[in-house]
Amino acid sequence: MPNAKPNATDGDFNLGRRGFLAAGAGAFLCSIGGQNILVERAGDAAKADAAAARVAKPAGAKSRPSAAAPGASPVDQLKFETPVPAPGGRVVEYWIEATVALWDILPTRPRRDYWHGVPLAGPSVFKAFVYQEMTEGFASPAGPAAIPGPTLECEVGDVLRVHVRNGLPDKYAQAITMHPHGVRYTPEYDGAYLGDFTRAGGYIGPGEEFTYTWEARPDSVGVWPYHDHGPNHTLNSMRGLFGGIIVHAAGAPRPDVSQILFMHSLAPPTTGLRRVFECVNGRAYAGNTPTIQAKVGQDVAIHAIGMDDAFHDFHIHGHRWRKDGGTVSTDNQTVGPAETITARFTEDNPGRWLYHCHVMSHQDNGMAGFYLVTP
Amino acid sequence: MPNAKPNATDGDFNLGRRGFLAAGAGAFLCSIGGQNILVERAGDAAKADAAAARVAKPAGAKSRPSAAAPGASPVDQLKFETPVPAPGGRVVEYWIEATVALWDILPTRPRRDYWHGVPLAGPSVFKAFVYQEMTEGFASPAGPAAIPGPTLECEVGDVLRVHVRNGLPDKYAQAITMHPHGVRYTPEYDGAYLGDFTRAGGYIGPGEEFTYTWEARPDSVGVWPYHDHGPNHTLNSMRGLFGGIIVHAAGAPRPDVSQILFMHSLAPPTTGLRRVFECVNGRAYAGNTPTIQAKVGQDVAIHAIGMDDAFHDFHIHGHRWRKDGGTVSTDNQTVGPAETITARFTEDNPGRWLYHCHVMSHQDNGMAGFYLVTP
Amino acid sequence: MPNAKPNATDGDFNLGRRGFLAAGAGAFLCSIGGQNILVERAGDAAKADAAAARVAKPAGAKSRPSAAAPGASPVDQLKFETPVPAPGGRVVEYWIEATVALWDILPTRPRRDYWHGVPLAGPSVFKAFVYQEMTEGFASPAGPAAIPGPTLECEVGDVLRVHVRNGLPDKYAQAITMHPHGVRYTPEYDGAYLGDFTRAGGYIGPGEEFTYTWEARPDSVGVWPYHDHGPNHTLNSMRGLFGGIIVHAAGAPRPDVSQILFMHSLAPPTTGLRRVFECVNGRAYAGNTPTIQAKVGQDVAIHAIGMDDAFHDFHIHGHRWRKDGGTVSTDNQTVGPAETITARFTEDNPGRWLYHCHVMSHQDNGMAGFYLVTP
Repeated sequence: MPNAKPNATDGDFNLGRRGFLAAGAGAFLCSIGGQNILVERAGDAAKADAAAARVAKPAGAKSRPSAAAPGASPVDQLKFETPVPAPGGRVVEYWIEATVALWDILPTRPRRDYWHGVPLAGPSVFKAFVYQEMTEGFASPAGPAAIPGPTLECEVGDVLRVHVRNGLPDKYAQAITMHPHGVRYTPEYDGAYLGDFTRAGGYIGPGEEFTYTWEARPDSVGVWPYHDHGPNHTLNSMRGLFGGIIVHAAGAPRPDVSQILFMHSLAPPTTGLRRVFECVNGRAYAGNTPTIQAKVGQDVAIHAIGMDDAFHDFHIHGHRWRKDGGTVSTDNQTVGPAETITARFTEDNPGRWLYHCHVMSHQDNGMAGFYLVTP
Repeated sequence: MPNAKPNATDGDFNLGRRGFLAAGAGAFLCSIGGQNILVERAGDAAKADAAAARVAKPAGAKSRPSAAAPGASPVDQLKFETPVPAPGGRVVEYWIEATVALWDILPTRPRRDYWHGVPLAGPSVFKAFVYQEMTEGFASPAGPAAIPGPTLECEVGDVLRVHVRNGLPDKYAQAITMHPHGVRYTPEYDGAYLGDFTRAGGYIGPGEEFTYTWEARPDSVGVWPYHDHGPNHTLNSMRGLFGGIIVHAAGAPRPDVSQILFMHSLAPPTTGLRRVFECVNGRAYAGNTPTIQAKVGQDVAIHAIGMDDAFHDFHIHGHRWRKDGGTVSTDNQTVGPAETITARFTEDNPGRWLYHCHVMSHQDNGMAGFYLVTP
Repeated sequence: MPNAKPNATDGDFNLGRRGFLAAGAGAFLCSIGGQNILVERAGDAAKADAAAARVAKPAGAKSRPSAAAPGASPVDQLKFETPVPAPGGRVVEYWIEATVALWDILPTRPRRDYWHGVPLAGPSVFKAFVYQEMTEGFASPAGPAAIPGPTLECEVGDVLRVHVRNGLPDKYAQAITMHPHGVRYTPEYDGAYLGDFTRAGGYIGPGEEFTYTWEARPDSVGVWPYHDHGPNHTLNSMRGLFGGIIVHAAGAPRPDVSQILFMHSLAPPTTGLRRVFECVNGRAYAGNTPTIQAKVGQDVAIHAIGMDDAFHDFHIHGHRWRKDGGTVSTDNQTVGPAETITARFTEDNPGRWLYHCHVMSHQDNGMAGFYLVTP
């Protein structure tokens, strides 16, 4: 729509007005290597990248944190063993490369909002940062680069061994990490940049590789996010550097249908695009977002995880579940950043259903999808 | 206060400054029939209404969705039976008309904030959209038109049969629906406009009637909202088109006092008024909002439901309850859009108590009320 | 940094741009004695203080509310007994003075963000309102004035007897109160200003004292906030007038490590400073915020409480806990204003860990700290 006027509303999404939907919306602060960068306009992301590129590898990421660092504690000098599986457990191995990919938020052709039955227009492709699954030894991509990254799946007693390579192109040369939720890890495998207190897994420089080893403990059962927690983690998480982890109870029946839905926005300061998209798994509007499928009688588990600065409210039409496995029945549950809520139920209601964030502006900005149930 | 200056603060509420309390506050996006309309200023609601008026009745709302629609699935061709009550259950019937009503957010005379003991001034009446309860066969109003609409109440095993008539005046001619939470319904009775996939209950055009049939299943026990989910649902929900559903467990003791409190804002883009009101059941400030009454010894159930784009935190002075029926005691609980939290307790503390949203700007903008307990 | 430019980002925090991080961010509405004051700019707090200073002592705060007050109810004429401890319980007594203190949000010297290993610059001292613990009979300060105020700790069956003196200097002469969550109190000890319905504890004028008597009931077990609920409660809560209450189950084992973390912002309209600080217990950035310490094997309880207008998401690295004591394992939980969430676990993971709000802009604005675990 090259001739769309700033305030055009039909067809295009160039919402030119001030407000939470225009440029300026989706602003956030990055604290990177001593700089505070407000990512509010398209050029700001480049400033954050430049600041991140200047963050040098801390000594602790090479051996151990210095005992002389300001604020150092004896705990910084502790040594840790790399964990092994519990008896009967396995090593579950992944190769993942952090890379840049052109990502289309509206992949349908012609682009369409299938909920409202209308065409979509306007630019929708941006340079995403993604965790791309690779085959063993980083031999080749194991599939297309995508938001979210691959789901890491294991059972209590197992160890996840995750080889991460920083394959960001030179233009974006900066350290990244992978920080997991839910699993048990020592500080070496926390995957968090901590300045002077950074451990080995907290800084994977450009071109470097690191292997994380995480344990699936009994209290790890559940579904969790992982995400970048390096020097530029806020911007990088906002542009796609995240994925999911599923830890099953040992021997427990697995759901027939399992779907992770990341609820997050892709906003102009992050994407350089003209509008905010409220997304599910990097896509916006039903038909572009995941279409979940199930059959009557199946055990269904849908996991909603927040992955931006906002709070969301996850609703599925035609279904109810026990809130947090307790006694309260719900069909709509609050979920915050990097928090997970799980809707688990035995499917009994065939048809086409909508799922969406019940924050209405999120829903109307694309945070919705279909759930199709066959008899 | 005809001579109030833009920045006057005494008595009047004409908060002329930019910010979340001025015009511009309460902005939200509507996605209507292929248009994206930012409802940010007074005139924008009329644009949304005009867009909604242009949304034609989908074929599926007349018979079944077309198998040729882009993205169609075999589930769109499924036929569904209208549910009947479980053995021993009843049909509980309501007649409800969607209509427009002049609604005063500050009904006390003289208008007063009874918490702070001060007069209130400034315009407070706007054109609300409401679900008005009617007598059998839509013969006549069953009471005054109000926010929220009538509470639909039944027991597990019952069927709710809800006859809805679209009585919106010509000026606002547009389809509406009624979408329930918590109860069990087939896609025919989902009450959601879904473009090409719309079923019968998803588009009630101007002057039309539709009868929804919903089942109260065991996992429907609880208190839930219903609201418009037609082409203009976001704006319509924002201006009053919602109400509550109570499903009792079969034979379970009912609370002596039961009160639903919708927590929502009525903002300038929606109302055309000069300021934001943070409301409980369409009213703002204690004495205008519901005054709940109970006696010591009574079983009290207060249900707070979010009904806007914000998150709230429901607090009652002098009382505690079990969070989600679990083991944690609380007196203050987060509640998101269309989510319900329930405070249930045996009354043991006489006196005048305040309830309010603990988001302080909400509380100070009117989201508060009294709870009076006699010995 | 006297020569820092408005848009400087290095070292300083003078984020001169519009947006949620600049002045204007952290705006909130105060409803004080019939005035509505938008606290959005530095001078606005003084207006709120002036309005609060004009709020006269209601008749009910001296004896009982007038039966002739508009909206009066028979419950306003009820008389209440001062509670006494349950058999075997104690009276636990505190003397606390509301006062003003210069408070440094960044107390490290040189000022430093120990997470990112970088220096901090820019003004960080403001006039906080605090509850200062005093020795018996208000003889002398029991320690430095601090945010939060002293933690009030007791057991079920006990009575908390809290003597509060309004020691605000003349410049800020206004009534304050202390309103508790969780404990049981009669309306006399609610500590809430209620205009014509105010009871004795709802207005402690300048220079006045009041003694609150609160019961620790079985459903009071938990950790709760207290805060000002006088005529100027919103501003006063925003600038430090809050603290914590811990009620233990009678005879229950107490955690080895217990830490309350208030999550709140200190923003320009409140502080007069140039930037927003996202704080934990009145401090911003790891090393300034509380550094929690524990040993492997200890029973650890960390309580996060919201204390501003925002919602937060509390995360600890390397640890998991049962959400609300139920069956769901979490490491990241939503917490709203004046709401408490508790992370309780047996420590088993030595090292340096980060805790932070998972709202990324909060985390990057200082809402983070360290948790050090020794083997």
